Amino acid sequence: MKKVVCDVLVIGGGPAGGVSAVTAKMNYPQKEILVVREFEIQLVPCAIPYIFGETLGCSENDVASCGMAETMGISTLLGRIEKVDIGNKIAFMKGYEITFDKLIFATGSEPFVHSSLKKSLDLEGVFTVPKNKTRIDALKEYTDKKEKIVVIGSGFIGIEIAVEFAGNGKDVTVIGGSKHILKNAFDTELGIRAEALILEHKVKYIGEDRLIEVLGEENKVASVCLESGKVLDADVVILATGYEPNTTLAQESGLILGHYGGIWVDEYMRTQNHDIFAVGDCSYRRDFITKEASKVMLASTSSAEGRVAGSSLFGIKYLKGFSGTLAIFSTMIGKTAFSSAGVTETQAKEAGIDVVVGAFEGLNRHPATIPNAQKQFVKLVVMKHGGQIIGGQIIGGEETGEMINLIGLIIESHFDVYKVMSMQVATQPMLTAAPTSYPVIMASVMATKMIELGKSDEKISKF
Amino acid sequence: MKKVVCDVLVIGGGPAGGVSAVTAKMNYPQKEILVVREFEIQLVPCAIPYIFGETLGCSENDVASCGMAETMGISTLLGRIEKVDIGNKIAFMKGYEITFDKLIFATGSEPFVHSSLKKSLDLEGVFTVPKNKTRIDALKEYTDKKEKIVVIGSGFIGIEIAVEFAGNGKDVTVIGGSKHILKNAFDTELGIRAEALILEHKVKYIGEDRLIEVLGEENKVASVCLESGKVLDADVVILATGYEPNTTLAQESGLILGHYGGIWVDEYMRTQNHDIFAVGDCSYRRDFITKEASKVMLASTSSAEGRVAGSSLFGIKYLKGFSGTLAIFSTMIGKTAFSSAGVTETQAKEAGIDVVVGAFEGLNRHPATIPNAQKQFVKLVVMKHGGQIIGGQIIGGEETGEMINLIGLIIESHFDVYKVMSMQVATQPMLTAAPTSYPVIMASVMATKMIELGKSDEKISKF
Repeated sequence: MKKVVCDVLVIGGGPAGGVSAVTAKMNYPQKEILVVREFEIQLVPCAIPYIFGETLGCSENDVASCGMAETMGISTLLGRIEKVDIGNKIAFMKGYEITFDKLIFATGSEPFVHSSLKKSLDLEGVFTVPKNKTRIDALKEYTDKKEKIVVIGSGFIGIEIAVEFAGNGKDVTVIGGSKHILKNAFDTELGIRAEALILEHKVKYIGEDRLIEVLGEENKVASVCLESGKVLDADVVILATGYEPNTTLAQESGLILGHYGGIWVDEYMRTQNHDIFAVGDCSYRRDFITKEASKVMLASTSSAEGRVAGSSLFGIKYLKGFSGTLAIFSTMIGKTAFSSAGVTETQAKEAGIDVVVGAFEGLNRHPATIPNAQKQFVKLVVMKHGGQIIGGQIIGGEETGEMINLIGLIIESHFDVYKVMSMQVATQPMLTAAPTSYPVIMASVMATKMIELGKSDEKISKF
Repeated sequence: MKKVVCDVLVIGGGPAGGVSAVTAKMNYPQKEILVVREFEIQLVPCAIPYIFGETLGCSENDVASCGMAETMGISTLLGRIEKVDIGNKIAFMKGYEITFDKLIFATGSEPFVHSSLKKSLDLEGVFTVPKNKTRIDALKEYTDKKEKIVVIGSGFIGIEIAVEFAGNGKDVTVIGGSKHILKNAFDTELGIRAEALILEHKVKYIGEDRLIEVLGEENKVASVCLESGKVLDADVVILATGYEPNTTLAQESGLILGHYGGIWVDEYMRTQNHDIFAVGDCSYRRDFITKEASKVMLASTSSAEGRVAGSSLFGIKYLKGFSGTLAIFSTMIGKTAFSSAGVTETQAKEAGIDVVVGAFEGLNRHPATIPNAQKQFVKLVVMKHGGQIIGGQIIGGEETGEMINLIGLIIESHFDVYKVMSMQVATQPMLTAAPTSYPVIMASVMATKMIELGKSDEKISKF
């Protein structure tokens, strides 16, 4: 048994763990920081779908760099922590006893599989999409030799994987379980456009139906049986039905869990014990707008949490800017980008929030004659009283990925449409929409009109 | 003499006038809005350089649409207002006497030519770059048959025009008058990169020299003579030496002008007479950061002014969000975008502002294996005391055009690096930098370190 002593122990080497460690070292250069992670090679999580198509082509092209941590003098151990004695501040792993002063759980998430489907994972050809190179390589190798792929789930990972497989010539069907794809990020009128694009990319979509059972022959997947009675042949079934926090170790250590099973933390990512922190997918999250427990799991917000935890280990150094997890997503289908931040109109109404919407469609370049100009559509969800922008959705070109970050900051800052109306932006023919009709401003202007007209919900849906 | 009566008279049909009129009609649908403009066809001003290369190819591809104004029921008259009697609220133009209740000057700007060079404009082959289709067409037609083009001025218009001409195979030399190009928007280390790119695009650059005289033969340009004594042959000379407010009419009407000659206005774009407004390039501007008189002229900030004026005509309807003109620019050289907002480090120091800087270089996609990933560099200029971000500069791909708008909002909102550090953004492999190293956040983190280390100015320049 080797005894190791460190000041800060980080369990997990994903984005949340990595950023926590780097931030801790930047803020406390004298402290000994140790990261324990399970895998020698860590994948970039959000690029995993691109391993299956021509974009990346193999998992070797999706490896996260650990260079910065090494340069900074952060230590790493490969292995799995099996037990944490929080009272005595000792973590145990095979062959090691690690004494720490501060501990950060960054144990991430595992694919969520509904209990009724768990037994189907025993069949050859049924896979989930974990953030684990060995298992991703197995999925890749298996599907390379197969034709008919059924993807269960129409969230970002399901859709991105389906489009990549279809691009490689596979016969791909997505079973959505909801009328339109990407429904947690986009309202129907945008979901429809995304759906039309995946069909163009040869992905079949079955919306209002649900997987009931995966059927096998000789312990190998043969078909899937849907709620409607429909049976589809399948060589491979991929369960892309979300993720759940990986909290076994934390729970066994006596930490309190929040709703949806994440490790309960406060705004500074501290558990009930202020020497113990949790960041990333394993931590409890509340939605930025609704303040309800949130299932959002993103490398970007996890990194933000890592920055907060890493600078708050030995006291609160920086006042935290924002409270609550912002749902903020982007994806790309062919040459069209889809982005969303905050709540959708549907989610707002379900949460009982009194909203209006403002929308604007234009072009992402100006004038319209600029080569490769693309349509650009912005929808804002706005508090009917107060005018604060609480959600935004965009369809456009590649610039959409940064435009949603502008909307994200607007939401995080509780800015209202009146402030955005006189916002000063840069516009340039080759890079943006026209100055006279910059879409985030125009959608804000439209929302003010809806507020002034006192438009009721049923009229809003015309947009 | 035809007598016309309107509620709101807008003089000028550029972006500022157009947005003012549309905004006025949206806010006061019962009011009669009349726009008087000189030209039947209005060019999109910031795309004028692209008329001279393959991007647009001719001015017919750079026409601003007036469709929205027409649909909304805004009236238009073509002509030139010759006199305004502010006391009696009457404007005079050939054949018309227009009575108004509110008046908006949106008379724009004219190319600025130094007094010592004005006589050279009499030579055939010497041009400025006005926002006027007839004169732009004349420049295009003339240069189409010529080879050697000398551009005077290394601001955005000069550089964009030079690169377009060079792309069309012309022999182009820019005389900068300053060591590096685009110096009002970028610090030296970024200016150098822009300069290297224009050289790659076959544009020659002469920095630390200055045009003294344009020499002619038979009333036609033959060469330019520089301060160093150097003489360059030239078939065409383009004076891209800035613009000055077009305020003759306003001045003759008795309105007060501000520094640099713009029509003096308050935050709601009202002149000393609250029935008379001025917006766009003809109006007086103060810099958002330094509060000094500003020479910045941009269609985007002009549009913002139009939105303010158009909704403040009959009382202050919306509280204005921001005070002062934000310098916020983007341009593209080949496949590389350059953007800037707020003050540069050099400008900050010249204004006596105590700053540190934070900078970060990464990639605009993640992981690095994503096809077409490009370098992305962000530099932030930050108040040493307080940490507010007062300037930002970016080099990157096309996404840069929207990323600068994120930085623009950060500056306009007086956000500090501590708030930005925990900002939540969306990251996606095909669209953005990595979640662990999103450059605006990383540059903020770097700036906090500079503040904490109490870095003095000479150390900052290492970035």
